[in-house]
Amino acid sequence: MKNNDFQDITFNRHSAKVFDKDVKISNEEMLEMITEATKAPSSVNMQPWRFVVVESKEGKEKLRPLIRFNTRQNDTSSAMILIFGDMKCYEKAEEIYGSAVEKGLMTKDVKKELMDFFMPGYENAPKEKMNDIVKIDSSLVAMQLMLVARQHGYDTNPMGGFEEDKVAEAFGLDPEKYVPVLIVAIGKSDYTAHESVRLDAKDITVFK
Amino acid sequence: MKNNDFQDITFNRHSAKVFDKDVKISNEEMLEMITEATKAPSSVNMQPWRFVVVESKEGKEKLRPLIRFNTRQNDTSSAMILIFGDMKCYEKAEEIYGSAVEKGLMTKDVKKELMDFFMPGYENAPKEKMNDIVKIDSSLVAMQLMLVARQHGYDTNPMGGFEEDKVAEAFGLDPEKYVPVLIVAIGKSDYTAHESVRLDAKDITVFK
Repeated sequence: MKNNDFQDITFNRHSAKVFDKDVKISNEEMLEMITEATKAPSSVNMQPWRFVVVESKEGKEKLRPLIRFNTRQNDTSSAMILIFGDMKCYEKAEEIYGSAVEKGLMTKDVKKELMDFFMPGYENAPKEKMNDIVKIDSSLVAMQLMLVARQHGYDTNPMGGFEEDKVAEAFGLDPEKYVPVLIVAIGKSDYTAHESVRLDAKDITVFK
Repeated sequence: MKNNDFQDITFNRHSAKVFDKDVKISNEEMLEMITEATKAPSSVNMQPWRFVVVESKEGKEKLRPLIRFNTRQNDTSSAMILIFGDMKCYEKAEEIYGSAVEKGLMTKDVKKELMDFFMPGYENAPKEKMNDIVKIDSSLVAMQLMLVARQHGYDTNPMGGFEEDKVAEAFGLDPEKYVPVLIVAIGKSDYTAHESVRLDAKDITVFK
């Protein structure tokens, strides 16, 4: 029985700092949530997001020294979802666009036209530009993942403060290819979240 | 009558390339959507997102040459929402945390402790690090904005390809302070969106 109440899911989301240690999330349900989260859009549908789901005792121990002050979340969450951006995401373009052709969503000609159009930009993008693209797209998916988690009855806590230069290698990934974006702790909250304030929309918006 | 069906809002969201030109969104409703979108989380609640809502004929004309191949969205949308990240967002920390104290959500002592803890990091962050933070946080809000728009009955198209080095100045913003993140076209879709493929969750996820 999933929660389908958009208002409740979205506006009652609060960051959970402590989770119920006894709650496990099956790999099947985790993949289901990732499937749902990755319906998020990405630049030219390149889907640069990659996930390392840290759930084992050994994995949590490896992660613990790398997440600084957020050890409670690491120690109590069902899983810590490390979201990485793939700096060579364009290597999957053929697979993505080929699959669209196979499924009849795109003709071969359109595929060629699109890929001829955007591939040179991706293949030759300066590192800073690619870093921006993969972090923006991976953050879109992170937000949708946090909402999908609520639909499944879980709570989350997004974390930006961790040892960015160590986390890829610690989990066997090439740090040149995979840049860490956010870590999302997930589980059932065992924490009384407090309301937090927001700036008034009028003070951060101009109409032109 | 807002749509409150999470499944429909989230999984039937598709990028709209053409909008119904006759649909206008009032400034009041736009601010309501921005208020709802900014319930999204951000690093230490710094809320670095800023919005320029381009809706006038003059604004659209100014934006047109800067958005490259997405002119249909510019010409037909109710508005083009330019989302910027504020590289000096920490200048609002006192306002944000002061307001939390005023509202009884935080004691003065906790406020001081938190600000003493994170402010030096923000004030002294290298440009690349601050760029990452504001782009990640602003992308979280962008995703929530696209979903909130669906709740209000509108469609969106997020766009990353535009003249990033010109858009701030064109709208009177200091380009050193405000970095563009995404442009979100919003309106009522007048476009038959097609399904798009996604990579299999199993192929982009590892469990550790």
